[in-house]
Amino acid sequence: MIPRMTVGDEVVVGEPGSAGVFRTQYVDLPAPLPLDCGKSLEQVRIAYESYGKLAPRKDNVILVCHALSGDAHAAGWSDDPSAPSAVDGFGADERGIKPRGGLGWWDGMIGPGKAFDTERYFVICTNLIGSCRGSTGPSSPNPATGKPYGLDFPVVTVADMVRAEKRALQLLGIESLLGIAGGSLGGMQALEWAVAYPDAVRGCISIASTAHLGSQGVAWNAIARNAIMADPDWQGGYYYGTGRTPTAGIGVARMVGHVTYLSAESMREKFARRLQERQDYSFSLTESDFAVESYLRHQAESFAGRFDANSYLYISRALTYFDLADHGGGSLERALAGVKARYLLISFSSDWLYPPRDAYELEAALRANGKSVTHHEIQASYGHDSFLLEERRQAPMIAAFLEKVANND
Amino acid sequence: MIPRMTVGDEVVVGEPGSAGVFRTQYVDLPAPLPLDCGKSLEQVRIAYESYGKLAPRKDNVILVCHALSGDAHAAGWSDDPSAPSAVDGFGADERGIKPRGGLGWWDGMIGPGKAFDTERYFVICTNLIGSCRGSTGPSSPNPATGKPYGLDFPVVTVADMVRAEKRALQLLGIESLLGIAGGSLGGMQALEWAVAYPDAVRGCISIASTAHLGSQGVAWNAIARNAIMADPDWQGGYYYGTGRTPTAGIGVARMVGHVTYLSAESMREKFARRLQERQDYSFSLTESDFAVESYLRHQAESFAGRFDANSYLYISRALTYFDLADHGGGSLERALAGVKARYLLISFSSDWLYPPRDAYELEAALRANGKSVTHHEIQASYGHDSFLLEERRQAPMIAAFLEKVANND
Repeated sequence: MIPRMTVGDEVVVGEPGSAGVFRTQYVDLPAPLPLDCGKSLEQVRIAYESYGKLAPRKDNVILVCHALSGDAHAAGWSDDPSAPSAVDGFGADERGIKPRGGLGWWDGMIGPGKAFDTERYFVICTNLIGSCRGSTGPSSPNPATGKPYGLDFPVVTVADMVRAEKRALQLLGIESLLGIAGGSLGGMQALEWAVAYPDAVRGCISIASTAHLGSQGVAWNAIARNAIMADPDWQGGYYYGTGRTPTAGIGVARMVGHVTYLSAESMREKFARRLQERQDYSFSLTESDFAVESYLRHQAESFAGRFDANSYLYISRALTYFDLADHGGGSLERALAGVKARYLLISFSSDWLYPPRDAYELEAALRANGKSVTHHEIQASYGHDSFLLEERRQAPMIAAFLEKVANND
Repeated sequence: MIPRMTVGDEVVVGEPGSAGVFRTQYVDLPAPLPLDCGKSLEQVRIAYESYGKLAPRKDNVILVCHALSGDAHAAGWSDDPSAPSAVDGFGADERGIKPRGGLGWWDGMIGPGKAFDTERYFVICTNLIGSCRGSTGPSSPNPATGKPYGLDFPVVTVADMVRAEKRALQLLGIESLLGIAGGSLGGMQALEWAVAYPDAVRGCISIASTAHLGSQGVAWNAIARNAIMADPDWQGGYYYGTGRTPTAGIGVARMVGHVTYLSAESMREKFARRLQERQDYSFSLTESDFAVESYLRHQAESFAGRFDANSYLYISRALTYFDLADHGGGSLERALAGVKARYLLISFSSDWLYPPRDAYELEAALRANGKSVTHHEIQASYGHDSFLLEERRQAPMIAAFLEKVANND
């Protein structure tokens, strides 16, 4: 089937193998969500999409989890032409994807015959709490005041995000997962799920991820948050409705993030020291002379226009707080003692933000507990972005893993 | 000799081997300095210090060149107790150095019996044009207006900096160098000197440096400059005398720089995921929970208090513009065809900002021209900062190289 859809005046034709055209759905949690910080979050809404059909025995569910700036629209085309896709800022250029029309951020992996085969599996993706893409976050109305939360939104953790996902799935009648999968922060969620709900996860796929960020990862996140909070337009977090948003600050944050997602090698191949539409230096401080300078400035502006700065702060904080070893009193091995899932870990040789060594640490802790784990370190040059750019090499690994889990091989 | 000096009420005792106590000196160039941008700079003042004695034949001169935030005070104690030393923000913590009292930024290498032996060599260090530490820069008075230049200061290049150094030395009666040495931007100056003035350089020592930054290095510098220029207190560069300076912006720039100077490994060893004076997360966005967050914030505040934001912009721009291959029409090999100096290159295995591959590229281009070059890649974990932290391993390499150059071996 080749899906067709109309976007504005333009007819967009999907690639063969597209999951189709989708509209984001919502569920409202019936009770407040207890949080790690001790507070609880009232009136929680979760945005989600699903692809494929739920089996009568509900044993074919796969939850895919997005990364920092992603959303629930993981596959196929969005029926909302105004919705920018999460794929926009994260590897879209490299893949030659035109986000107009809203192609899902993991469309290369989810669809009929793809790694997450929608002819066989029922794939769900939910938007994180704390985000600004449909689920409750700092830009949502605070029930206590009717105005956007701003910094009154409580600090949430990856465990809180996972707790919200579990409750949302329960509302949809789903109690357990054949598989859970994600890259980066999405991989952290997968790891957390398998520990928090050992009886509800059969297969855990963690890609380009870690049990805990190291000092450098914590530092990059701190710098990005500092850049946002240093912007006077941030206004202590209460900028909604003021007509001013911290676009400069989130722009700098995005530039930092973007460079950490790439590798020095892939940047060299793409940009070298090429100048941008000029023959010689401008001898000015304000011009973007180099192609890489121009690219970063474009990424910053584009991101500032589509992502809420407070959501960035909250999700970045959750990323740095995440430490799976906390479940074992500081021991990763002990934290993983009770898991029942099988694990597939994928890491990328050039990923220096979530380096392969972190996946090897996870692998060792699982093996020490006698758990089933397969770890592939893929030789790839794209850095952390490899998890979205090297889909063809991951797809057979994931398909084979899911096959084994489904068949209890 | 153990030098003694009084700093405030405190008597500071220098380490054995200190070059002594010094006061920064100044020379004023008698003619305008022509610049690569086509403009020229009037009334140029150059700050400098010197250590050791000039030989009657003036054949024992070594020029040491500082990096981005350094200054002319390279060795011994400063007699100005209010002058913060350049060593403060760059590896001072790791070396256990208390900058109070003003120990020079390369004191471990310059002094009696040290790598740059002041019993034998006459060592000079000048402050860069564009800087804010005594030489003419954007915070200096513009002769045309009597007010600080701000963004009317012309964009300068590494070649301009080197041209200023050459003229300053000529005023001191020095026409040629036994050696020139520096790390990072200092190494770029050494490389530029040997190409621009082939008859004036006998030994060129370039440490943790490169013939040209790659895309990632250009990107980090662009991000740092964007952070400064995004700060409304920057005011287009004309903030002098307004009572407002872009401290938040330069703080973010410094944080980015600082992380790029370290390695993931050295950060992990120093900070791990340790919390700063707390047992549990604050569950807040504004607190510095992790030790590494607190450290970066401290570095940012300290740097903002001692370095001019416009100087940072200008010097960062010069760093990114520098490409030694420009002397050869884009060919590094051709650029080096006319050099007469011998070369000592030192790189560090964990330096990802100025990676060893860049030193290997230089080495290959020199060898292709039949030039004399020694390259040591030192296995060290401190990243780019290794050039200031691994002094003991570099010292014998430098001493032996200078010995050979001095003896024409």
